[in-house]
Amino acid sequence: MAGVKLFTLNGNVPLAEKIAKEVGLPLSPASVKHFADGEIQIDLDDSVRGADVYVIQPISDPVNENLMELMIMVDALRRASAHVINVVVPYYGYARADRKARSREPITAKLVANLLTMDGIDRFVAVDLHADQLQGFFDLPVDHLRTMPLFASYFKSLHLGTENTVVVAPDHSGTKHARALAELLNTPIAIVDKRTDNGEVGVIGHVRGQHTIIIDDMIDTGNSVIDATKALKNAGALDVYAAATHAVLSHGAATALGKLNLKQIVITDTINVPAEKHLPNMVTLSVGPMLGEAIKLISTNQSIHPLFEVHDN
Amino acid sequence: MAGVKLFTLNGNVPLAEKIAKEVGLPLSPASVKHFADGEIQIDLDDSVRGADVYVIQPISDPVNENLMELMIMVDALRRASAHVINVVVPYYGYARADRKARSREPITAKLVANLLTMDGIDRFVAVDLHADQLQGFFDLPVDHLRTMPLFASYFKSLHLGTENTVVVAPDHSGTKHARALAELLNTPIAIVDKRTDNGEVGVIGHVRGQHTIIIDDMIDTGNSVIDATKALKNAGALDVYAAATHAVLSHGAATALGKLNLKQIVITDTINVPAEKHLPNMVTLSVGPMLGEAIKLISTNQSIHPLFEVHDN
Amino acid sequence: MAGVKLFTLNGNVPLAEKIAKEVGLPLSPASVKHFADGEIQIDLDDSVRGADVYVIQPISDPVNENLMELMIMVDALRRASAHVINVVVPYYGYARADRKARSREPITAKLVANLLTMDGIDRFVAVDLHADQLQGFFDLPVDHLRTMPLFASYFKSLHLGTENTVVVAPDHSGTKHARALAELLNTPIAIVDKRTDNGEVGVIGHVRGQHTIIIDDMIDTGNSVIDATKALKNAGALDVYAAATHAVLSHGAATALGKLNLKQIVITDTINVPAEKHLPNMVTLSVGPMLGEAIKLISTNQSIHPLFEVHDN
Amino acid sequence: MAGVKLFTLNGNVPLAEKIAKEVGLPLSPASVKHFADGEIQIDLDDSVRGADVYVIQPISDPVNENLMELMIMVDALRRASAHVINVVVPYYGYARADRKARSREPITAKLVANLLTMDGIDRFVAVDLHADQLQGFFDLPVDHLRTMPLFASYFKSLHLGTENTVVVAPDHSGTKHARALAELLNTPIAIVDKRTDNGEVGVIGHVRGQHTIIIDDMIDTGNSVIDATKALKNAGALDVYAAATHAVLSHGAATALGKLNLKQIVITDTINVPAEKHLPNMVTLSVGPMLGEAIKLISTNQSIHPLFEVHDN
Amino acid sequence: MAGVKLFTLNGNVPLAEKIAKEVGLPLSPASVKHFADGEIQIDLDDSVRGADVYVIQPISDPVNENLMELMIMVDALRRASAHVINVVVPYYGYARADRKARSREPITAKLVANLLTMDGIDRFVAVDLHADQLQGFFDLPVDHLRTMPLFASYFKSLHLGTENTVVVAPDHSGTKHARALAELLNTPIAIVDKRTDNGEVGVIGHVRGQHTIIIDDMIDTGNSVIDATKALKNAGALDVYAAATHAVLSHGAATALGKLNLKQIVITDTINVPAEKHLPNMVTLSVGPMLGEAIKLISTNQSIHPLFEVHDN
Amino acid sequence: MAGVKLFTLNGNVPLAEKIAKEVGLPLSPASVKHFADGEIQIDLDDSVRGADVYVIQPISDPVNENLMELMIMVDALRRASAHVINVVVPYYGYARADRKARSREPITAKLVANLLTMDGIDRFVAVDLHADQLQGFFDLPVDHLRTMPLFASYFKSLHLGTENTVVVAPDHSGTKHARALAELLNTPIAIVDKRTDNGEVGVIGHVRGQHTIIIDDMIDTGNSVIDATKALKNAGALDVYAAATHAVLSHGAATALGKLNLKQIVITDTINVPAEKHLPNMVTLSVGPMLGEAIKLISTNQSIHPLFEVHDN
Repeated sequence: MAGVKLFTLNGNVPLAEKIAKEVGLPLSPASVKHFADGEIQIDLDDSVRGADVYVIQPISDPVNENLMELMIMVDALRRASAHVINVVVPYYGYARADRKARSREPITAKLVANLLTMDGIDRFVAVDLHADQLQGFFDLPVDHLRTMPLFASYFKSLHLGTENTVVVAPDHSGTKHARALAELLNTPIAIVDKRTDNGEVGVIGHVRGQHTIIIDDMIDTGNSVIDATKALKNAGALDVYAAATHAVLSHGAATALGKLNLKQIVITDTINVPAEKHLPNMVTLSVGPMLGEAIKLISTNQSIHPLFEVHDN
Repeated sequence: MAGVKLFTLNGNVPLAEKIAKEVGLPLSPASVKHFADGEIQIDLDDSVRGADVYVIQPISDPVNENLMELMIMVDALRRASAHVINVVVPYYGYARADRKARSREPITAKLVANLLTMDGIDRFVAVDLHADQLQGFFDLPVDHLRTMPLFASYFKSLHLGTENTVVVAPDHSGTKHARALAELLNTPIAIVDKRTDNGEVGVIGHVRGQHTIIIDDMIDTGNSVIDATKALKNAGALDVYAAATHAVLSHGAATALGKLNLKQIVITDTINVPAEKHLPNMVTLSVGPMLGEAIKLISTNQSIHPLFEVHDN
Repeated sequence: MAGVKLFTLNGNVPLAEKIAKEVGLPLSPASVKHFADGEIQIDLDDSVRGADVYVIQPISDPVNENLMELMIMVDALRRASAHVINVVVPYYGYARADRKARSREPITAKLVANLLTMDGIDRFVAVDLHADQLQGFFDLPVDHLRTMPLFASYFKSLHLGTENTVVVAPDHSGTKHARALAELLNTPIAIVDKRTDNGEVGVIGHVRGQHTIIIDDMIDTGNSVIDATKALKNAGALDVYAAATHAVLSHGAATALGKLNLKQIVITDTINVPAEKHLPNMVTLSVGPMLGEAIKLISTNQSIHPLFEVHDN
Repeated sequence: MAGVKLFTLNGNVPLAEKIAKEVGLPLSPASVKHFADGEIQIDLDDSVRGADVYVIQPISDPVNENLMELMIMVDALRRASAHVINVVVPYYGYARADRKARSREPITAKLVANLLTMDGIDRFVAVDLHADQLQGFFDLPVDHLRTMPLFASYFKSLHLGTENTVVVAPDHSGTKHARALAELLNTPIAIVDKRTDNGEVGVIGHVRGQHTIIIDDMIDTGNSVIDATKALKNAGALDVYAAATHAVLSHGAATALGKLNLKQIVITDTINVPAEKHLPNMVTLSVGPMLGEAIKLISTNQSIHPLFEVHDN
Repeated sequence: MAGVKLFTLNGNVPLAEKIAKEVGLPLSPASVKHFADGEIQIDLDDSVRGADVYVIQPISDPVNENLMELMIMVDALRRASAHVINVVVPYYGYARADRKARSREPITAKLVANLLTMDGIDRFVAVDLHADQLQGFFDLPVDHLRTMPLFASYFKSLHLGTENTVVVAPDHSGTKHARALAELLNTPIAIVDKRTDNGEVGVIGHVRGQHTIIIDDMIDTGNSVIDATKALKNAGALDVYAAATHAVLSHGAATALGKLNLKQIVITDTINVPAEKHLPNMVTLSVGPMLGEAIKLISTNQSIHPLFEVHDN
Repeated sequence: MAGVKLFTLNGNVPLAEKIAKEVGLPLSPASVKHFADGEIQIDLDDSVRGADVYVIQPISDPVNENLMELMIMVDALRRASAHVINVVVPYYGYARADRKARSREPITAKLVANLLTMDGIDRFVAVDLHADQLQGFFDLPVDHLRTMPLFASYFKSLHLGTENTVVVAPDHSGTKHARALAELLNTPIAIVDKRTDNGEVGVIGHVRGQHTIIIDDMIDTGNSVIDATKALKNAGALDVYAAATHAVLSHGAATALGKLNLKQIVITDTINVPAEKHLPNMVTLSVGPMLGEAIKLISTNQSIHPLFEVHDN
């Protein structure tokens, strides 16, 4: 890994440190200042000429500040003659704005891809993209890591699986996602069905007396977990786990989830959850080792395929 | 609509004629030759200087020939000083190759978007894209027309709706689509659940004694309709309609569907279905009037929003 | 001006209203939401097909939010088939990051230009760019409006000019700017000379017993105005006016300026100064009429040259 | 040649095998499927991260299928992090569509170059381009190999040369080509002159009692060889050889040539000629060794110049 | 032709005036200064906002100055909001550098096309390109005008034609060109055959006792006309006309041609021939009316096809 | 420095030789011909496949010829498979055309940057750019070397510094530049103030009885040095040195400067000053060692920062 340099910006320093530890390299120094007038200034304190650089930055809240930090950093790296600029974006903000749901909407997820491409990145490393099609928003290599094996290993360690568990999609677009976890756990699935017209929420599938695991790619306001949990309990579920990769937890989400009597909330650290949003029943799986391992494989031109195996406990 | 010219290539001449009739303009003459060595030659027989051109061509079987015809046509139009080049692509071939499902796959749907963009198109008019994210594969205006109102109006005319009907998603990724038609018909939904591990096919949701409508964006080999139909019949459905926008009907699909005892197969003419694939229980709704109306609105800078209303019968 | 539509974002609504009034058109409706997770969503409530659109948005504090609003808006307009997208950016944030002052710095002002260009704008309308070279950061038309005539007219109305007044550059890079105002007022100039090594501040030129006008393109922290004012008073200036186009007034700038005993602080409304930063001796000249007039000229293909004449009072 | 990987698609597998043998590397595995609906799917069965990849594919009949295979392959390679993507295209389909012969024609040869460039190729290796100007259709490195030395060596081995032979251009645009072979064989040239108005075909130059070699870059329908042969025989030629690099042999070309009583038809294997088009008097020179040698030189940063020497027998 | 503006640079003012006269518009004012340090400065003295601009400039000697004038002009026009930028380039300098004749050569003709494209031109109007493939060096509209009808009309007016005349290609690459004029005059052709090895020059075809017309696209050093003339006279030609579109006449070409005893030298005014190079037997056909007519047709969106008819006298 | 190759064009061969000596590599052979018709032809006489190439060429008089040589060279290098193309441009012609000073002017400095970028350069090495913002005209790495330490070292060797010397900006835009040299020499500054309205020239600051050093980035016509010298002498300066990086010396500049009675004219060899412009009091500092050292650092991926230290004598 001659010439590899790791940088973090302000998005998720604890994760960056975990990644660096796994890679076995220090984080290179850079100063990132936010001035009183709102502008950001970045200085690289170390030469990057000819280096294979990895910049770690989720586009999480504050989304626009974090995105701008990333774009300014890439501009600095390019002008400073970095050889390869890899950006590691554990959480892709604006990913849900990936289509025009109504006339005259922007497709901001594509805009973000265009901005980074124009800025000169060479590779985009992502975790659990909201939609697989986001890979196609780039024309450069996207290494898309998936946490499903992490979740599967974890739930297996809790002895959830065939016979006693149902994996639940919290809405119509999550069915495929739920099916994937169900395959790994060898369970049936159910779907929470919310009608747009009258807002009625029901469950399609059998959950009575079962452990249930609501699986989603992110928990933002928490509303769909809340609705799904209520529907599952109404339908006689034994208990409810909520699992999601990206813990956006905006607004009062943490508080509301705290009141829900969920068995566990299982998330990852793609987004840095501040202490005040931690809940007693919250379990955090770290993507640090996986991302660190990915960087080692990528920078030595090895396939990242082996990262996707499920480890049984 | 001063300066509007319509062209068709070989993909779907009958549809192009229906569109032209709705627009109220003739199809402009162009010669499209396929030589014995496999090359295509196109000559425009009419000046297009300064014209607002619409080229009608689905990327349907023969997919690569049709795509190449379209790209060569756009090259000719650009060099011949067309003012605006709109392509009307009722069926987007390769749309399912919209993500890397496994390592080292291409994303051919994005490649197609890139090819057309590079070639110099100004607008892409599409019908029922396989995934909404395909809009974001372009950075130029995409006018995405949807046939759901056509289908809803048709099924309402058959008195299918609340109380007697269930809309069915044939697989996990079709749930959202099914929910949309169900809203228009005011019915519940069900999902056909196929496990990847053992291939077992079941139905999630209640269909016993109900009319069922399997809705999908396309019928290609027919296999998912066939599986779904069997599962629905096993689950006690009263009868089964299969509905899909794009009638790809590859290989022996038509023959196999013919043996299925479906109540009706409802498709549109985005793809030109050859006579030998017609079935007695096949009903074709034309997208010609909708596309013609869209061209009239677009070329006069009017919103195409009104096209999306459902007309009750 | 058939087909002209004006939009404002959140950067400076009062100025946008003044511009709209001058143009004689209403601001078109658009909803701009900031979600709890930090993401921005924009919906255009009106068709823009074929329209000649002007979006008014200074890239002022919160700089990154305002820039992102602008980029998302442009994405929406482009996809919604706007014919021409003009952005009117009265204050160009990050303009001072226009060169690498040290090794391994970004050139964020160029990054901003690249981002907007990539996004698809057709014209950039600016006011008093920090450096004239910023025009060259774009390859598309930049209409660069200058407020010097506004300031000259204002100071002439106060009877400041030949014999009694000296125009002062607050630092070495402002000399040319000062010379320009001095020409219009027919006065000599002086320069505040700050040494980098010992921080000593002196005045080069004669100011004793004279009215002095410190002219700069922006007041950010206020420090250079403060240093210059002290140096001028030490050098025997009769009184001191501070004039600047862009009232950034970050941090405690307003408070510090309030303590300075300046005769007047003359600014414009390119940036919306919140009420709590208003000072009794602050005079605001509006750029609204000039920008409105510019839009009328641009949209009717007339030269904007006549805007640059000085009007005597 | 660390990191070199060779791939072939379906265009000309026998040639690819000859090239691989010369290079001394196996062809890397990739699956290329043509589905019943006409779509192509490619999967790379081997990691290409950081590799220097050569893809071998003539754009020969079926031209559009072969071109699409190539473009999809390049998309897959790019997304899979190949370091350098070289395409080896022994036959450039659409090369004759290299100009607008009439108003409103496309320039499909340029379109093909644009498509491949946009797709992300790094180098184009070609053999005997129809026009040298095609190199300029690319802005990236084109390594243009020429078979003239192969043909010259072959004809010398037959003792054709000064005193007994005339090289013949079959039409007005082939004169330069004929002159080049004539120089190597040290013979005079003649030109077959076909008038556009009355279709009369004559020979300019002296061929009576001479061996004649018609040289062209390709034989497509065979018509110009047929016309030229007749004209040469009318003009008293002793016998006639037909030589061409690219054996397109479309339609009934092979059959018609078989009836011509040519001494020999000398071609190369840039295009894979199916068994049913083989003729008893057809001699095939292989470009495999030359292309393999070129790949060895290119991948080790050596000049390919030495490939162009004529070897006497 | 509302909004059309014509500009000329220094390349060929007399031709620009002829064009302007035909169009019926004055040449718009622009100042083009060449400073003592070699730099060029251009100021447009007239607004071009929204205008359909035509800039007339051959890339003739001084080639690099003229090209640079053109590129600077286009930069100014683009920044000044011209609506459409058409460049009218009667002579395309560097056109012969259209391929790599040897290893490691540039393709300067493509470079020129790239430079102009990057600079933002919308249309390239050319006259008798050295190779038709140059059209494909651009991806934007090229309107390629041909002077062959002018020459044919002129020679017909001299009663040269069937029975008494042979059209002669001065080298191997000119055969096609000669064939084209021969068709219009209804005459046979001959080819001057120069061997590279020994430099021997002969004539292929029958010219004894005939009027001969050497036709080429340009006369540069005059050497090929000189060689051809000698060969034709040796072969018994009655007399020799030399005809060429572009009168480059570099170095001592005019003097040498003056000594040749040619019947006539027929050229056009695509390049402005200075008075000292005029010869008594030189006849200049003007392309001004054709270019002016082309501008009228282009700017009113009419086909330029009718320009290519031959007018008999 | 494996794979490094140095080339020079005709702009400044003596400097290129000094650079090559410092680097320790020979200049690679290339033939650069200027034909009688004004066209330039370049052939690389050596393979550059995979090489890290540095091309040395100031864009000095003849500016357009030199720029064109550079662009053609880059085209040849790119097509010949050079791995990295670095251009070393000691003098950036057209640098003063870096903004629109008036309406409808080009920004030729940006045009030059765009042309080189489009042509495919990978790095731009510059010396003392006229404005720092020119770095931002490129989006690729710019290594900007500064001669200020060379000048400071030289003047220190003459014992000019604190107490006896004043550094003088010859106009309003040079103040910052003068301040920088003054910091290194530890002296005050003065500014020559020229009013645009009446052309009066005065000095702001105290120079009586002092050694004065006029510092500028270039001497072109010499007029500002002449005006400044007169003003300084009028203001009682003891003597006057004129220092500038780029010795453009156009027109009669050398003659006029020769009559000025300057103590010394200190320049560098970024531009090759022909013998006839040499003056007895002209001192030339060579940038050769600095540029050679820079190439060694760049090609081995080391920071060029250490080049910017001032060496005391």
